[in-house]
Amino acid sequence: MVPEDSGSRELDRLIFFSDAVFAIVMTLLVLDIRVPDVAAHEVPGAVLELWPKILSYVLSFLVIGLYWIGHHQTFRYVRSYDRTLLWLNLVFLLSISFIPFPTDLLGEYGELRFAVIFYAASLGLARLLLALVWWYIVSGPIQTSDDLDPGLANYHFLRSLAIPAIFFLSIGIAFFSPNAAMASWVLLVVADAVLWRLWKRKLRNGREIAR
Amino acid sequence: MVPEDSGSRELDRLIFFSDAVFAIVMTLLVLDIRVPDVAAHEVPGAVLELWPKILSYVLSFLVIGLYWIGHHQTFRYVRSYDRTLLWLNLVFLLSISFIPFPTDLLGEYGELRFAVIFYAASLGLARLLLALVWWYIVSGPIQTSDDLDPGLANYHFLRSLAIPAIFFLSIGIAFFSPNAAMASWVLLVVADAVLWRLWKRKLRNGREIAR
Amino acid sequence: MVPEDSGSRELDRLIFFSDAVFAIVMTLLVLDIRVPDVAAHEVPGAVLELWPKILSYVLSFLVIGLYWIGHHQTFRYVRSYDRTLLWLNLVFLLSISFIPFPTDLLGEYGELRFAVIFYAASLGLARLLLALVWWYIVSGPIQTSDDLDPGLANYHFLRSLAIPAIFFLSIGIAFFSPNAAMASWVLLVVADAVLWRLWKRKLRNGREIAR
Amino acid sequence: MVPEDSGSRELDRLIFFSDAVFAIVMTLLVLDIRVPDVAAHEVPGAVLELWPKILSYVLSFLVIGLYWIGHHQTFRYVRSYDRTLLWLNLVFLLSISFIPFPTDLLGEYGELRFAVIFYAASLGLARLLLALVWWYIVSGPIQTSDDLDPGLANYHFLRSLAIPAIFFLSIGIAFFSPNAAMASWVLLVVADAVLWRLWKRKLRNGREIAR
Repeated sequence: MVPEDSGSRELDRLIFFSDAVFAIVMTLLVLDIRVPDVAAHEVPGAVLELWPKILSYVLSFLVIGLYWIGHHQTFRYVRSYDRTLLWLNLVFLLSISFIPFPTDLLGEYGELRFAVIFYAASLGLARLLLALVWWYIVSGPIQTSDDLDPGLANYHFLRSLAIPAIFFLSIGIAFFSPNAAMASWVLLVVADAVLWRLWKRKLRNGREIAR
Repeated sequence: MVPEDSGSRELDRLIFFSDAVFAIVMTLLVLDIRVPDVAAHEVPGAVLELWPKILSYVLSFLVIGLYWIGHHQTFRYVRSYDRTLLWLNLVFLLSISFIPFPTDLLGEYGELRFAVIFYAASLGLARLLLALVWWYIVSGPIQTSDDLDPGLANYHFLRSLAIPAIFFLSIGIAFFSPNAAMASWVLLVVADAVLWRLWKRKLRNGREIAR
Repeated sequence: MVPEDSGSRELDRLIFFSDAVFAIVMTLLVLDIRVPDVAAHEVPGAVLELWPKILSYVLSFLVIGLYWIGHHQTFRYVRSYDRTLLWLNLVFLLSISFIPFPTDLLGEYGELRFAVIFYAASLGLARLLLALVWWYIVSGPIQTSDDLDPGLANYHFLRSLAIPAIFFLSIGIAFFSPNAAMASWVLLVVADAVLWRLWKRKLRNGREIAR
Repeated sequence: MVPEDSGSRELDRLIFFSDAVFAIVMTLLVLDIRVPDVAAHEVPGAVLELWPKILSYVLSFLVIGLYWIGHHQTFRYVRSYDRTLLWLNLVFLLSISFIPFPTDLLGEYGELRFAVIFYAASLGLARLLLALVWWYIVSGPIQTSDDLDPGLANYHFLRSLAIPAIFFLSIGIAFFSPNAAMASWVLLVVADAVLWRLWKRKLRNGREIAR
């Protein structure tokens, strides 16, 4: 094995770098909520009218938070890396760094079918890329930690697809009603809670079988 | 216990990620102070007129600094984490990442009751969320370090409420006078100094009793 | 040897600092893609017209990613530092932090010879500065790790020159056709893939000889 | 001693946090260099006219880099911290985070006496605050590492004052000629090089005496 395929210190940097990108993107989102330039007595009304922007900012912050947790659950099993993993992770981070744009678009034109579809496609694609990272980790030459058995790996992959599936389904819904599409994103919270619970049960079972 | 509930390396990343969000927000604040676009001889006057913006930037920088110290004092007792703590911390960070907006609003419309109330509510809420994080840590399933006794935990929680209390009281004051409300924020400095002193005495006493 | 010339903890900070600059620059790039301010029915068209900006953003993100990998491959052999290395690295980071400007220029005026040349010169220069950092590491007073033999060091340096060579050649091409110059940047991907493969072979051979 | 006065892990975070602020400020500086919005044939000229902005960006990047190195040389001797050190460091970071504003002012109105004075005062003050941090470290209750003798501590403090002295002197010069004031900043490079050399000699002598 060549040095670059291993090294926990190098891996730490890869994860640190990814965390920094996550933190910066999540913090930059607020910059698109601009203080209105109006007469003093109109300020309260003008700030209240910003609610679609505030909502899209909160939504993106929480979704990226969800992806950040997913990224950690992905890389905690990784024990080596190669050039492909580096680049897959960079392409995933590229899709994360892009999120301020669809977020702003949704905040500005939330009633618009195009904005809803563009947002769902961008965020669904980002999560799909993380699923691809996971797929490469478990099926490629990457060394993984001992507590990752094939059953857990498959479950983790299927679970990765739940969020993009919801986003891509909402694209279909948006053709009938953009508002219904946005409402369907509440499923993200439900899906995450259910899948986390199932995963913890799986982990616990795995350990009992091991005993 | 499932793996995700523990792991000091994972906890380090949670804290690193939070620190990065704090650092980015504190540094982004200055971007709202724009260089005036005026004739050369008007520049000194135009820069001096920026003082409300500079003041709100300094205020927010120091208050977020205060919260950053509070976040460290909170997490130094934490020895494990679960999904709820992850999400509570993310929601707290969301409230921190929002601060550039009320800061800019206060800098732009500082004489306005609405801006003062919006600022006090945003910053008070952020600190309240950190108090909630602490409440979950000491009353939930989170493992804490051995040097945290119940008396210290309770004291820490009461102390957490001092800053939001000052901000929420200033909302009431703002209905009579926005300027008096802003002046009351000086109490933040006093409260922090007093509470730190009390806390250090408490820590010292606790150690003497332990002996 | 004076303390400042050594210390792995100090070196870690130097690398962490560089990683943070890389992460911030890569994430700031998207801020230049502004949501268009048009009537609702014109939004899809206006977003599609942003493709040159999106393309230049993706290009710069990936090239900086390439440089980030190069920076890691450079510093993984470093075991001490001095004032010259600190400043060479800072000047390299300066050239990295500048990249959002040529990226925005290319996204705005992609059809323009001047924008293409300015972009190629800026990004080629940045990589050349990293090659200079490497040259100083292997030829100056810096301590390097034991697994760096002169053959590897020379190979690494020659390899460093491939990317700036492509960028500087494309400046010549741009005088005939800006589009052909941009097309020639595809060679970056080819060159990186070939050189990585050659390097891994070299590493493997080196190890076999050592045995 | 109370726990908060010690803990190398807590100190690491303080330094990491400071490094993040430095990295963000240095990277944000470029955002003030905006791509001109002109006709295609005017772009080269308009970009060339940006040179005062590019110069002030390069200057601030390098000066902040100098301060970052100074911050490291300061904190490498620190072995404990207290509330005063936390706040002194935060106030220093506040002055660092402010630098994009005077940088932009200088880039926009470089010919203007007011801009030159404002810049020199802001950057001189920031370095003076770091000198204050050092003064507190060596004269207050902070624990320092064993290799810091009083002679070195005094030398370090005097050295800290060289940069603010140059900036504050340049304010005086600016009353006669803003251009001469800016030219005097070249002394920063000279002073830094001389003082580094003297310091290394001092370190070497100290070690020889210790033997």
